[in-house]
Amino acid sequence: MQKWVYGFGGGSADGAASLRNLLGGKGANLAEMSRLGLPVPPGFTITTEVCTYYYDNNRGYPPELEAEVNGALCGIEGRAGARFGDAANPLLVSVRSGARASMPGMMDTVLNLGLNDETVEGLARQSGDDRFAYDSYRRFIQMYADVVLGLDHHSFEELLEDRKSERGILLDTELSATDLRELVAAYKERVADGLGRPFPQAVKEQLWGAIGAVFGSWMNDRAVTYRRLHDIPADWGTAVTVQAMVFGNMGEDSATGVAFTRDPSTGEKLFYGEYLINAQGEDVVAGTRTPQHLTKTARLRAKDGKLAMEEAMPAAFGQLVEVYQRLEAHYRDMQDIEFTVQKGRLWLLQTRAGKRTTKAALKIAADMVREGLIDKKEAVRRIEPAQLDQLLHPTLDPRAEKRVIARGLPASPGAASGRVVFSADEAEELGAKGVPVLLVRVETSPEDIHGMHAAKGILTSRGGMTSHAAVVARGMGRPCVSGAGALRIDYREETMWAGGKAVRKGEVVTIDGATGEVMLGEVATVEPELSGDFTLLMGWADEFRRLSVRANAETPTDAATARRFGAEGIGLCRTEHMFFEADRVLAVRQMIMAEDANGRRAALAKILPMQRGDFVALFRIMAGLPVTVRLLDPPLHEFLPRTEKELTELAAASGIDARRLARRTDELHESNPMLGHRGCRLGISYPEIYEMQARAIFEAADEAGRDQDRPVVLEIMLPLIVTRRELDILKDRIAAVAAEVGRERGRTPRYLIGTMIELPRAALKAGELAETAQFFSFGTNDLTQTTFGISRDDAATFLDEYRRQGILETDPFASLDVEGVGELIRIAAARGRRARADLKLGICGEHGGDPASVAFCHAVGLDYVSCSPYRVPIARLAAAQAALSGTGERAIASTA
Amino acid sequence: MQKWVYGFGGGSADGAASLRNLLGGKGANLAEMSRLGLPVPPGFTITTEVCTYYYDNNRGYPPELEAEVNGALCGIEGRAGARFGDAANPLLVSVRSGARASMPGMMDTVLNLGLNDETVEGLARQSGDDRFAYDSYRRFIQMYADVVLGLDHHSFEELLEDRKSERGILLDTELSATDLRELVAAYKERVADGLGRPFPQAVKEQLWGAIGAVFGSWMNDRAVTYRRLHDIPADWGTAVTVQAMVFGNMGEDSATGVAFTRDPSTGEKLFYGEYLINAQGEDVVAGTRTPQHLTKTARLRAKDGKLAMEEAMPAAFGQLVEVYQRLEAHYRDMQDIEFTVQKGRLWLLQTRAGKRTTKAALKIAADMVREGLIDKKEAVRRIEPAQLDQLLHPTLDPRAEKRVIARGLPASPGAASGRVVFSADEAEELGAKGVPVLLVRVETSPEDIHGMHAAKGILTSRGGMTSHAAVVARGMGRPCVSGAGALRIDYREETMWAGGKAVRKGEVVTIDGATGEVMLGEVATVEPELSGDFTLLMGWADEFRRLSVRANAETPTDAATARRFGAEGIGLCRTEHMFFEADRVLAVRQMIMAEDANGRRAALAKILPMQRGDFVALFRIMAGLPVTVRLLDPPLHEFLPRTEKELTELAAASGIDARRLARRTDELHESNPMLGHRGCRLGISYPEIYEMQARAIFEAADEAGRDQDRPVVLEIMLPLIVTRRELDILKDRIAAVAAEVGRERGRTPRYLIGTMIELPRAALKAGELAETAQFFSFGTNDLTQTTFGISRDDAATFLDEYRRQGILETDPFASLDVEGVGELIRIAAARGRRARADLKLGICGEHGGDPASVAFCHAVGLDYVSCSPYRVPIARLAAAQAALSGTGERAIASTA
Repeated sequence: MQKWVYGFGGGSADGAASLRNLLGGKGANLAEMSRLGLPVPPGFTITTEVCTYYYDNNRGYPPELEAEVNGALCGIEGRAGARFGDAANPLLVSVRSGARASMPGMMDTVLNLGLNDETVEGLARQSGDDRFAYDSYRRFIQMYADVVLGLDHHSFEELLEDRKSERGILLDTELSATDLRELVAAYKERVADGLGRPFPQAVKEQLWGAIGAVFGSWMNDRAVTYRRLHDIPADWGTAVTVQAMVFGNMGEDSATGVAFTRDPSTGEKLFYGEYLINAQGEDVVAGTRTPQHLTKTARLRAKDGKLAMEEAMPAAFGQLVEVYQRLEAHYRDMQDIEFTVQKGRLWLLQTRAGKRTTKAALKIAADMVREGLIDKKEAVRRIEPAQLDQLLHPTLDPRAEKRVIARGLPASPGAASGRVVFSADEAEELGAKGVPVLLVRVETSPEDIHGMHAAKGILTSRGGMTSHAAVVARGMGRPCVSGAGALRIDYREETMWAGGKAVRKGEVVTIDGATGEVMLGEVATVEPELSGDFTLLMGWADEFRRLSVRANAETPTDAATARRFGAEGIGLCRTEHMFFEADRVLAVRQMIMAEDANGRRAALAKILPMQRGDFVALFRIMAGLPVTVRLLDPPLHEFLPRTEKELTELAAASGIDARRLARRTDELHESNPMLGHRGCRLGISYPEIYEMQARAIFEAADEAGRDQDRPVVLEIMLPLIVTRRELDILKDRIAAVAAEVGRERGRTPRYLIGTMIELPRAALKAGELAETAQFFSFGTNDLTQTTFGISRDDAATFLDEYRRQGILETDPFASLDVEGVGELIRIAAARGRRARADLKLGICGEHGGDPASVAFCHAVGLDYVSCSPYRVPIARLAAAQAALSGTGERAIASTA
Repeated sequence: MQKWVYGFGGGSADGAASLRNLLGGKGANLAEMSRLGLPVPPGFTITTEVCTYYYDNNRGYPPELEAEVNGALCGIEGRAGARFGDAANPLLVSVRSGARASMPGMMDTVLNLGLNDETVEGLARQSGDDRFAYDSYRRFIQMYADVVLGLDHHSFEELLEDRKSERGILLDTELSATDLRELVAAYKERVADGLGRPFPQAVKEQLWGAIGAVFGSWMNDRAVTYRRLHDIPADWGTAVTVQAMVFGNMGEDSATGVAFTRDPSTGEKLFYGEYLINAQGEDVVAGTRTPQHLTKTARLRAKDGKLAMEEAMPAAFGQLVEVYQRLEAHYRDMQDIEFTVQKGRLWLLQTRAGKRTTKAALKIAADMVREGLIDKKEAVRRIEPAQLDQLLHPTLDPRAEKRVIARGLPASPGAASGRVVFSADEAEELGAKGVPVLLVRVETSPEDIHGMHAAKGILTSRGGMTSHAAVVARGMGRPCVSGAGALRIDYREETMWAGGKAVRKGEVVTIDGATGEVMLGEVATVEPELSGDFTLLMGWADEFRRLSVRANAETPTDAATARRFGAEGIGLCRTEHMFFEADRVLAVRQMIMAEDANGRRAALAKILPMQRGDFVALFRIMAGLPVTVRLLDPPLHEFLPRTEKELTELAAASGIDARRLARRTDELHESNPMLGHRGCRLGISYPEIYEMQARAIFEAADEAGRDQDRPVVLEIMLPLIVTRRELDILKDRIAAVAAEVGRERGRTPRYLIGTMIELPRAALKAGELAETAQFFSFGTNDLTQTTFGISRDDAATFLDEYRRQGILETDPFASLDVEGVGELIRIAAARGRRARADLKLGICGEHGGDPASVAFCHAVGLDYVSCSPYRVPIARLAAAQAALSGTGERAIASTA
C-alpha cells in the first residue's frame, strides 16, 4: 500500500535526502539530518503525492491519510514528550510547505499550532512566561486567521497598533502579558465577527485546516507566477511538513538564525550568517529587525557594534560550527541552514543547497575541486548556465564620477540605472514599455515578485543580506542594494529622501549591488572583467562539451564581444542589419522604387562598397573562424519610409514623385508580412539583390583573406527555403558571381552554401534540400512561429494567459518546444544527414542561448548552436552539462 | 541499347498506342493506326526521351540519333516511293511535335519540308501543277523562316499582300504560278537579308533545323503557360514526328478536314465534322476559312447551302465512315480525327480521344455503357471531374428578355456576361481585379490563352467549331461563341459593330455558348438542370467511392444547393459568417468593446437568438445528416469598423466614446493576424463567446430535432488547436453548457467534439489530440499557409513567378502539396488513428473540391472531404475515380 506520511526525529527517519521529489526539499533534508543524528525537532512529512491526489480529487484526501497522520502525531508526542491539545503539557507544531524546488515565501506556513484557550495556559505554566505564551497565541491566531480562515491580516495589525498607542509604546516587546491576553480576546472576537463562528479551539481541526491551506497555497497566484518564472511544473506538487515547535523567543538565551557554510555573495570559504536573539525565524527572513553577525570576524569586518553569536552564545555557536562542517562534507555543497536556539539548546529547522551569486557559485565550485570535495565534471554541473548572465553584464566604471546619496548592503551584484518607481505594478507597467526602472521599497514581499522581475534593479531601506529582496534578487540576477537605512521612503508622496535630498518618482538613480552604493543619475558602466574562476570553469566546460558555440553578430563590436566570450565563429550574420543605417537606407529605398532590374542595379551599386566594407571588418575580427552570412531576409517594405517627412526626403533624393512612392509603399503592403514576400523569395524575384550581396561577400573575403594567415571560412546561407529548386536556382546564381569574382581577382572564392530550416516544409523536405545544401541552420524563431501558427509580435495578448492556464509550460519563443518544433528538427536532422553524411547542422534562433534548448540541440546531434554574444558562455556551459548528462545522439537515429 | 526513333507506315509500326509516354499522343496513335492497316502516310517518331536528353545535355542530341534518323528516313522513302532531296521525285515531310498530353497549337510545326530550288521543280513536274509547287515552296519558306530561323512572319505576309494589291486581287488563290515564283524569290531575298546567309537548300540541314525547333518550342512561353494551366510537368518532354506530306490542296479532288465520331458538344451519336476542299490542314484549324459540313444531315440542320463531304466526295466519305467506326470500336472512345484527301485518296494524319463538353462526355460515357462498349467503371473514369464545373453553372433564364445582336457558333456551352475587352492582356488585367470580362477577338491564337483564362467568356467573329477559340474554351470550361461573322471588330477604336449598333469597350454583353447568341447587356441566368446522364453517372460514381462528400455551408441557400448536388452532410459551418450581417455586427462590436466578461455576456445575449435561429434553419435542411459547426475563428478586429462613419455609428449605438473605440481598434491591430489572437485562442481568452455559441447550437439542435424524424447529428469543431490542453479546457466548458441545456430542456444534447488540424504542431501532436478529439478535420488552407510560410493574401506577388520558374508545379492553395502538407496529414492521420481507432477524419479546406487532392484524401484513408456546394459532384466523381484507381490506404500504415 502507498505510504502517504513519513516521520522523522530522534536520530532516525522514514525518509532521506534522496526522496526529495516525494517529501519536498525541506522534508527530505529534515529526514536526512535526523538520520545523521543532528538535533532536529521531531515531525512528519505528508508527501507531494497527497498534493497531486488532492487536486485530482476535487481537493479531497486519500482515505488512509487521517489514520497515518494520527499515527505520526503520536510519534512526535513520544519524541517531544508533550501531547497535542493537552492542557497541561501541550505539543505545539509548525505546518509548512516544501516543494521539490525551493520556492521561498511563495506558500503558506502556520506556526504555534495547537494553542487554544486551555493549552495557552499550559504553555504559560510550562514556560513560566505568561507573556511568551500569550504572544505565541496572538501570533498563532493572526497567522491562522490570515492563512487558513482567509481574514485580512491588516485588521489584526490594526488592533495591535491601537493597543500600542493606547499604552503609549512603540515596540511589540513592550506589551505586557495582560496587554497580550486582552489582545488575544480582541483577536478572537474579530475572528468570530469575520467568520460568523468562533476561532477553532479543537487542535485537530486547527491541524487539518492548516494542512488544507498549505496544499491550497500551491495554486495561489504568487506560487503560480513563481513557477511560471522558474519553469516549475504544476504537477510536481508540494509536501507538507508538520513539526514540533521550538522557540527562539523564549528569552535572552534563545535565538534564531540563518547560516551559510560559505559566503553566498563572494563564495569565500567563511562561515557566514545572521541571527537575532529572542526572536522567531520569520523575524530574520522578513527583515523587520536588522540581524547580527554570526562570527566575530564578520562583525569586525562590517564594523558592527552588536555582539556576534560566537561571542554572545559561544556554546550554541560551537555546536553550530560542528553541524555546518558536517553538513557541508555530507552534502558536498554549500549549505543554507536555519536554526533556533531554545534556552541554550540548538535545533536545526532546515538545510539546503544555498543560493549564491554566480561569482560565488564559480568560486565555490572551483574551491571544492581544489579541496577534493568534488571533481571537475561535478563543478561544471553545479553552475546554473542562465546565472552566468549576471557576470556578463556591465559594472560601474570605476573612473566615472558618482554622487553617492546612500549606502546599503551589497545584496546582489551588478550595477543598474533606472527611473525610480515605488510599486511593483508600476515597475511592471513601465518595464513592459521598455523603460528601465529601479524598484524602490521599504522592504519587499512575495507580492512584489512581478515588479522585481520587471525592474533593472531593487533598492530597499530595510532588511539584511538574507531578506526577501536580497534572496529573490540574487535568484533573478537583478542587482540589489538592501537595508539602506538612511533612506526615507514615502509611498504616498512617491518620493524618497536621502539626507536632505528628495528623489521623486521618475528620476534616474544608479545602484551598485556589489558595493551597496546608491547614486544619483546614471553612472557610466564598464564591461565585466571575468574572474579566474570563470575562465577555469569555462575551460573545464569546453573540455566536456561536444557542441560548438557560435554567435549571432553583424557589427564589429558584437563580433569582438563574441570572441571575448569564446565564440567559435559567427552562426548568423544578418546582412539586412547593414542596410538600416541612415546613409544606406536611402540607396536601399531607391533600389526598391526602381522601375526595373537596371534601376535596381544602379542603386545596388551604391550599396555594394558599403556592404563589402562591413564584411571586410567582420572577417578580419573573426580571423579564420567560420562566418555564416545570411542573404537579405525581411520584406522590402520594412525599409520604406514610414513618415511623411521621410517620404518627402526620399522623393527629393531619388527624384521620384512622392505620390508614386506612396503608391509603391501601398503596393508592397502585406497582410501577413511574416508569411510574405521575403527571404529567398526576394532573391528569386530580384536576382540582382543577392548577386550584389554575393559579390560584396566574395570581394571582402578576398580582401580580408589576403592580409591574414588564415583564409576566411565562408558559409552563405539562404533564408526561407521551402523547395530544393529555390536553393538550386540561387546556388547557381551565387556560383556565377563567385566565378566572376574569381576571374577578376585571380582567386576563386571558397565557400559552403546552405539553408535556413525555418519553415515546416523545409524540415520535412530536408532530405532533398541536403542534396544541394552543405549545411542547415535551424531558424527556430520562425520555425516556432509557423509550427504553432503564432506570430511573436502578436502573441503577447494570449501567451501569458496560456502560461497562466498551464496550456504552455514555457514560452516557446524562449525555450524550444521540444515536442512540436523539436520533432521537426529531429526529422530534418535525420533526413538531411541521410542524404549528406557530412551535413553541418546548427541553430541560430534565439533558443541557441537557452540552456534547455542547448541540451536538446546536443541530444539531436547538431554541430553547433549560435546565440547572442552575451549568451555565448551560457551556451558553452549548457553544452558541457548536456554532454555530461549523457543524453547522446539517440534522437536522430530513431526518427524519420 | 536505347532506341530513339520509331518508324511507322504501310500497315506496320515499331510503336503502338500504348507507348504514348515515349512517342507522344500523335506518334503513338499514328503507329497504332498503321498497325490497324489504316491509310497513314509513312513516317517516324523521335521519342520524348530525346527531348529530355536534349535539355539535360545543353540542347545536344544522343550520338546515335543521326544514324537512326537517317535509317528511318530511308524507311519513309521506301514506303512513299520518293527520295528526300531528290530533284526528280522529291519526298516532302512534315515535322510536328507530339507530347504525352495534347497541347493544341502550343508547339511548332513545319510542313512541306524538303523543298528547295531544285525539288520544287520536281514537285511541279510530278504534280503537273506549277502553281501548287510554288505555293507549297512559298508556304514552306515562310513557315521555316518563322519557326526555325526566327524571322518575323509579318514581313513575309507583307510581301504577299503587296503582291496581291499590285495584281489587284483579293484572294491568295488568285495568284498565278508566276506570281508565286516571284514571291518565292522575294521571300528568299528577305531571308538572306534577315539572316545574313541564304535560305538553306540542303534538305538534311532543313530537317535538323526543324527537329531542333520543335524540341526548342517545348520551352517557349506559350507552352510553359499552357503546361502551368494544365498541370503538365515540364519533364514529360515532347516527341517529334516526321511524316511524308500528303496534300489536301492539290485541286478540287483534294480536301482536308477534322472529324469527331460523335458530336463533341452534345455527345449525340452522330458523325460530325468539317472540311475544306483544296486546302491544307492548318486552314481548318486556324479558322481563316469557314469550313463545310461532313454529313448531309448536319448541313441540312444548319441550313447551310454549301455541299457536305458526303455529297461532294462520296467515295472518300465512305472510306472515312468505315475508318471512324473502326477507330471508335478500337479505342472504345469518341475520336477526333484529322484527315486529308489527296486526289481522291483518303489519308489519316491523326486520331485522338476527342475533347468534348462535359454534357457530351456524360452522354457519350452513358451511351457507350448502354452500347456495351465500356463498363460502368470505365464510364466513371472517363469523366474529368473538374469539367463537371461547366454543368453546374448557370445558363440563361429562358424567360429573361434578351436583345440578340448577333449569332455565331455554339462553340462551348454555358452563359456568360461581362464587360467587353479586345485584348487578352486587358482581359487578364481586369479579370485579376475581379471585373467580369468578355474577351472579344476576330480569332484567337495561342498568344491569347492567358486572356481566355481570365475572361468569363469568349466571342470571335471568325472560325468554326474546331477553331482555336472553340477548342481551348471547351477545355477551360469557358462559354464561347465563335465565328459570329456579322460582327465587325475594330481593335483600334476598341469597338465592335453589330449591324448598326456600336458596342464599345467596357459595355456589358452576354453570350450563350449553347445557342451561339450574342446579347446586349446582362441577361438573367438560371441554375442548371442536371441531365439524366449526369444523375446516372454520379450514381455509378457513388457506387464505387469510399470517401463521403460533404459541403462547406452556412446559409440555408448553400445548404440546399449542397444537398441537391448530393452532399452527405456539412463538413464546415463557419459560424462567424453569421456575424457579419448588418443587424448582428453591431452586437458583435459591442461585445468586442465591452470592458469585462459581463459586458461581453450582455452583448452576446443579443446575438444568441439570431445564431440559434440560423442553426435551426440549417439543421432542418440537413435533416439528420451530420453538421460540423466550427466555433468562432477570425481575429476580433475583422469585425471592427473600418471607416469613420461606421465608427461614429457604433459610438452612437453603444454609447461608447468614439476615441475609446478607436483606441481599442488600435489595440486589437495585429502585425500578422493570420498567426494572431484567433481561433480557439479567443475561446480561451473569452470563455463567454464559445459558451454562447455552444448554447445556440444545442438549443437549435433540440428545437430542430423535435420536429423531424431524425435527430440532428452534431459535430462541434474547435479551430487553431495546437495543444491537447486547449482542447480539454474548451471541451469541458462546452460539456458544461450541454449539461445546462440538458437540464433546462429535459434532453441532453448529443454531439461529437473535434478539432481542426490546421497548424503543423497539431498534426505532429495528433496522437495526444485524438485522446480528446473524436474527429479531426484538416484545415488545409491554413495548414498550407503555415507549412510553406506563405500567406495566401500576399502570395500573388511571387507565386506566379514561382510557377513560371518551375519552383512549384501547381499552386499549393489550389491543389494539395502532397509532399509537404501531405506528409503532415499522413502523420496526423496515422497518429490520430493509433490513439483512437474510430477517429473520424475529414478535410474542409478548399482542396476538398480539387480532384487530385481528393485522390490524396482517399489514399491516406480519410473518411470524408468537404468542399463548396458547387464542387460536391466533382468531389464525388474524383472520390470514385480514386477508389477505382486502386490506391488504397497504404499511406497511413507506412508513416509515423
